[in-house]
Amino acid sequence: MSTVRVTFEPGGQRKQVPRGTLISEAAAIANIDLATPCGGKGQCGQCQVLVKSGEANDPTDAELEHLSSDQLRRGRRLACQTRLMGDTVVEIIPQVAPIVEKSLGPQMARWVPLEPAVRQELVQLSEPVLDDQRSDLRRLADAVADKYPQLTATPSVLRNLPTAVRAEDQRVAAVIHDNQLIAIYPHREAPRCLGAAVDIGTSTMALYLIDLQDGEQLSSAARANSQAQYGLDVVSRIDYANTHAAGLAQLRRKVLGDINELIAEAVDKVSADQQEIYEVTIVGNTCMHHLFLGLEPRYLAEAPYVPVATEPLNLTAGEAGLDINPEANVFCLPCIAGFVGADTVGVIAATEMTHRQQPVLAIDLGTNGEIALWTGESLLVASCAAGPAFEGSEIQQGMRAAPGAIDHVFIRDGDIEITTIANQPATGICGSGLLDAVAVLLELGVIDNSGRFIDDEVPSELSAAVADRLEGEKNLRRIILTDECRNGQVPVALTQRDVREFQLAKGAVRAGIDILLDYAGLSADDLSEVLIAGAFGNYMRAGSALRVGLLPNIPEDRVKGVGNAAGAGAGLALISQTERSYACQVAEAAQHIELFRRPEFQNMFAEQMLFP
Amino acid sequence: MSTVRVTFEPGGQRKQVPRGTLISEAAAIANIDLATPCGGKGQCGQCQVLVKSGEANDPTDAELEHLSSDQLRRGRRLACQTRLMGDTVVEIIPQVAPIVEKSLGPQMARWVPLEPAVRQELVQLSEPVLDDQRSDLRRLADAVADKYPQLTATPSVLRNLPTAVRAEDQRVAAVIHDNQLIAIYPHREAPRCLGAAVDIGTSTMALYLIDLQDGEQLSSAARANSQAQYGLDVVSRIDYANTHAAGLAQLRRKVLGDINELIAEAVDKVSADQQEIYEVTIVGNTCMHHLFLGLEPRYLAEAPYVPVATEPLNLTAGEAGLDINPEANVFCLPCIAGFVGADTVGVIAATEMTHRQQPVLAIDLGTNGEIALWTGESLLVASCAAGPAFEGSEIQQGMRAAPGAIDHVFIRDGDIEITTIANQPATGICGSGLLDAVAVLLELGVIDNSGRFIDDEVPSELSAAVADRLEGEKNLRRIILTDECRNGQVPVALTQRDVREFQLAKGAVRAGIDILLDYAGLSADDLSEVLIAGAFGNYMRAGSALRVGLLPNIPEDRVKGVGNAAGAGAGLALISQTERSYACQVAEAAQHIELFRRPEFQNMFAEQMLFP
Repeated sequence: MSTVRVTFEPGGQRKQVPRGTLISEAAAIANIDLATPCGGKGQCGQCQVLVKSGEANDPTDAELEHLSSDQLRRGRRLACQTRLMGDTVVEIIPQVAPIVEKSLGPQMARWVPLEPAVRQELVQLSEPVLDDQRSDLRRLADAVADKYPQLTATPSVLRNLPTAVRAEDQRVAAVIHDNQLIAIYPHREAPRCLGAAVDIGTSTMALYLIDLQDGEQLSSAARANSQAQYGLDVVSRIDYANTHAAGLAQLRRKVLGDINELIAEAVDKVSADQQEIYEVTIVGNTCMHHLFLGLEPRYLAEAPYVPVATEPLNLTAGEAGLDINPEANVFCLPCIAGFVGADTVGVIAATEMTHRQQPVLAIDLGTNGEIALWTGESLLVASCAAGPAFEGSEIQQGMRAAPGAIDHVFIRDGDIEITTIANQPATGICGSGLLDAVAVLLELGVIDNSGRFIDDEVPSELSAAVADRLEGEKNLRRIILTDECRNGQVPVALTQRDVREFQLAKGAVRAGIDILLDYAGLSADDLSEVLIAGAFGNYMRAGSALRVGLLPNIPEDRVKGVGNAAGAGAGLALISQTERSYACQVAEAAQHIELFRRPEFQNMFAEQMLFP
Repeated sequence: MSTVRVTFEPGGQRKQVPRGTLISEAAAIANIDLATPCGGKGQCGQCQVLVKSGEANDPTDAELEHLSSDQLRRGRRLACQTRLMGDTVVEIIPQVAPIVEKSLGPQMARWVPLEPAVRQELVQLSEPVLDDQRSDLRRLADAVADKYPQLTATPSVLRNLPTAVRAEDQRVAAVIHDNQLIAIYPHREAPRCLGAAVDIGTSTMALYLIDLQDGEQLSSAARANSQAQYGLDVVSRIDYANTHAAGLAQLRRKVLGDINELIAEAVDKVSADQQEIYEVTIVGNTCMHHLFLGLEPRYLAEAPYVPVATEPLNLTAGEAGLDINPEANVFCLPCIAGFVGADTVGVIAATEMTHRQQPVLAIDLGTNGEIALWTGESLLVASCAAGPAFEGSEIQQGMRAAPGAIDHVFIRDGDIEITTIANQPATGICGSGLLDAVAVLLELGVIDNSGRFIDDEVPSELSAAVADRLEGEKNLRRIILTDECRNGQVPVALTQRDVREFQLAKGAVRAGIDILLDYAGLSADDLSEVLIAGAFGNYMRAGSALRVGLLPNIPEDRVKGVGNAAGAGAGLALISQTERSYACQVAEAAQHIELFRRPEFQNMFAEQMLFP
C-alpha cells in the first residue's frame, strides 16, 4: 500500500498516511483538533482547510455545494471530503465562534473560519548582500508572496520599514490588509493585532473588540448615541444637518467622538493600545452610515430617498477620523437603500437567512424598523417608520433597556406584576415591557381591540386590584404598573397616548410584514422562523408579540430573539473575509420594497393598528 | 455584396461599408484622421484603435507582435490590420507626440496613443425615481461601467457627489483614476484635466505641464534643486540626513517646496489652476525618489546599498505633500537599484531601447552617471560615480548649462574660440564646454594623454595665441578660454585640477561602458547607437566625446543627444498607461551590475582616466 506524506500548517505536524486518507482522518492521526460538527458527512461545510500544495481528489458534490469555484481554485477544501493522493501541505484554518454566540445566543452559534482581512505575519527576511540588493519592500513582498501576491505600501509605512527590518536581524512583524502593508515592527515589538466591530445605532452604539489572531472577543462597550441631542430619530437629525450651516460636520463629530470613546473604553478593559487596532468594521442604518462618513444625508429624507453611496467602502482610519492606527482599514458594510442600511445587511449576514431552504423573516426593531424576508429564493427588504416606541422613546415614561427598566409585565393572581432589568427599582419602561403591558391590558380587558382604555364603567370581571390602578379620564386615562404603596418609588404608568404610540409602531411593522409576505405569495404559516434582532428581541416575549398582533399568527416557538445581530454581522465581517463577501452579496441581492408605494399599504396600516 | 455599419467614437461618425473593409479604410471614408506612419503595413503598430463591439477578423501576425494578449482581449487592434466583419463600434484613440518630440528631439519623435491613467468623463446620470433608488455613486458607476468596471470613491469625494449630481440635471464631469473617482463637478464646472511630469534631478529639477485630454504639453518650468544647500551630490545629502535630527524631513520639505514652486509657475503660464492637476508622475534617482517620499536614504549609501522601495508607487497628492488637487494620484516610476533610479528607467522607456533589434547604449550624465546597455536580448544597467563634473560642478569656474555658460570650445585659425549659451558674455563653463575644452587642449597638445598641462617649455607647434593663454605653474597651471582683452569680462579659465576632475568622471563612465560591453560579450562596433541623455547630451559634441575617449570608438553619427529623456519618460507615463507599464517592465527586467565589484574595474578605471 502506497503512502503519502502530509504536512499540516501552521503547526508543522508531519505524518505518513496511506494514499487516499481523508484530510480529517490524517488530522486526527496528527492530533489536530478539527471541528466536524456534522460528523464528517459533508453537510455542515465547516471543516474547511486550505490545500496549499500536493494532490487530492476532485471536489465532491458536498464541496461544490459549500465552496465557491473561486475558493476551490485557491485550494479551499472540506477536510472530511478530501483524500490525500500525493505528498500534500494542508493549512488548518482556525475556527472561531465568538461574535455569533455572544451576540446571537447559543441557538445561532456556528463555527466560522478565522480569515480576517487584516493579519499579522511574522516574517524572516533574507539578509541583503551585494549579490542581492532587492529593496526592503521587495524582500518583504517576496517573503510573503504566496499569501500576498502583490504587496505594496504607502510612504508613511515605508518610512518605518528600513529601521524595523534592521532592528532584529531582518525579523519583522508585518500587518497586512489586502496586499497593503499597513504597519511594520521588529519581531520583538510585534503588536497585538486587534479589530473592532462597531454598530452605530440611532439611539445606542456598541463596539466589540476582537483579537484578529485568534478571533476571540476581548471586550465590548456600549453607549448612547450623543447625536440624540440633535434629534431622536434619523429624520430629525437629517433636518438638523439641513438647517444648520455646519450641522453635518457637528453630527459627524458627535458620532466619531462616541466611537472613539467606545474604543478607549474597550481597549482599556484589556490593557491594549488603540494603535493596535488595525481594522474596524461598521454597520448602522443608512443615515448613521452617511453621518459617520460625513456624506450629505439630505436626499435620504427627500423622495426618491437616494443615498450618496450604498456600496461597501474601505477607507483608512486617518480618513475616517478614528483614534486607532492611522493606517488601519475601516470597512463600512454596504447599505441597501435610504432606509435599509448596513445594520440590516449585518442582520441578514449574521443570521445566514439566505442559506435556508425555508422562508424566514427577520425584523430589526431599533429606532427604525427594518424587515427582511427570505422567501427561499429571493430576499425582500423593507423599512417601516415604526418610530422609536420599541426603544422606549416617545413613551411618557419610556426608557432604553437599562437597569430599572420594566422589561416584563404579566398577570399574577388577577393583578399586574412587573420585573425590571437588574431587579432595580422601576424607573421607566422599555420596549419589551411596553409590549407585555399592552398584551396584558388587552388580556385583562383594560383596553379594547381599538386600543381604547375602558372608561369609568369598569367591567365586573376586572379585579379590584387592577381597577385600583386606573387613573385619569379620557385621553389622560392611565394605568399604574408599579406598586407604589410597597416601595415608595415614583409610580411608572402607561397612558392612553402611550398605547396609541405603540399602535402606530406595531401597525407599521405588521403592515410591512404582511405586505412582504403578500408580495412573495407566502402566508405566515410558511415562515419557518421569525428572527427578532435588536435589544428589543432579547427581552421581548414572543407570546406578547403574537397577542398584540405585532407578528402574524405563527407558533410561538418559531419566534427567536437574535440580539444585536447587526453588530454580529459587523463582527463576522471582521473575522472572516468569506462572511464579508457574503454580506456584500446579500446587499447586492436584496430587493427593496418601498412600502408606502404599495397601493394596499394605507389600508393595511390602518387595519393593523387594531389589535386582534 | 454585403455591407456592415461602422460607428466611430468619440465623434459618432457612421458609415456603411463593404464587409471586410479595413478599419483604416473605413476611417478614411468617414473623414477621420488616423495616423498610419508605416503606410498601413502593420509595421509601426501605431494606428491602434479600440473595437468596442462587433465582429472583426482574428488578429494578424502584425497585431500579435505589436499588441499584448491582454490588449487584444480588451479590443485593442491595429486599424490597418482589422477588417470589419459585422456592425462594429470602433473607438479612435487620439495619438499624441508632445513629450517625446519636445524633449528628445524630432529624431526620436513617435506617436503615442493618448491613454492617461487619469481621465475626465462627461456623464449623464439617469434621474433617480422611486422605481430606481440606486445611490448616486451607483448611478455614476453604472453609467461608466464599460470603461471602469468597479468604480469606487473615497469619502472626501463622495462628500461632493450629491451636490454635483443635482446641480445640473444629473450631468457631471467625473475625474477617474484607475476605477477610483477622484473628483466630481457639475458638467458646466468641468475642470481642465491636467497632469504634471516631474524630473527631480540632483542639481536641476524640471516639470512639464500636460493637458491629459489632448496630450498637449502646455508649459514647463525648471529650477535648481534647493537641497543643494545641504550638499551637491547624493552622498552628501544622505550624510546630512544621517547626521541631523530632522535632516530627512528638511530635505523632503526642500524638494516638495521646489516642486510646488514649479507647479505654480507652470500653471501660471497657462492661467490654469493647481487644483486642476489630477496626476503627477515622478522620476529621479533613487536618492531623490527616497527624499521626495520621506524614505530613509541611509542604506543607499551603506553596503549593500539597499533601497527602501524600488517598486512603482501610487499615492495621493495629499500624502505626497503636493499643492495640487489633494485626491490627485502621484505615480512614482520604479527604481532599479540604489544608484540606478527612476530617472534611468525613464530614459530607457522614453528611448524604447529594448524594442531595438540591435545593441544600443544609453548614458545619462547628470550629477551621477548611469549607463544602460540593451544587448538586443537583455538589459544591463550600472551607475558610475562620475561626480558632477558633467553638470559643471566641482570645476573651478563650472556652472550649469545656462545663459553665459561656455557650451562649446573649438580651434579656429590656430587659436581657441568659444561660444556661450544665448550668446551672453561668458560667466563660466558647463559640461559640454568642459568636454570640448579638454578635447581641444588634447588636440593642441596643451595637455598630454595623461592629462598633464605642458610646462614652461611650450612646444614650437603651439601657436603664440594659444601659448599666451597659459598661466601659472604646476598644479596651478591653467589656460584662459575667454578673450578678456576684447570684452573686459572676468576671464574663464580651465585649470589643471579641472582637467583631473574631468578625467575622474570620464574614466568612471568609460570604465562602466567597457565593463557592460565586456559582460555582454559585445564590442563598441556592435552598438547601433549611443544615446546621451541629460542637458549635457543636448549640448555635447560627439566628436569631443570620442576624442577624449569618454565614448568607445564608434562612428560619430551613431552618437545622439536625447535631451531630458528621463523627464520624457515621466511624461510618457503620464499620457499613456501602455508606456507606464513598459517603464515598469523595464525596471523589472533590468539587470544591475555593481561596477566596483567587477574584478577588472579598478584597472579599467585607472586606464580610462588616460586619454587616447
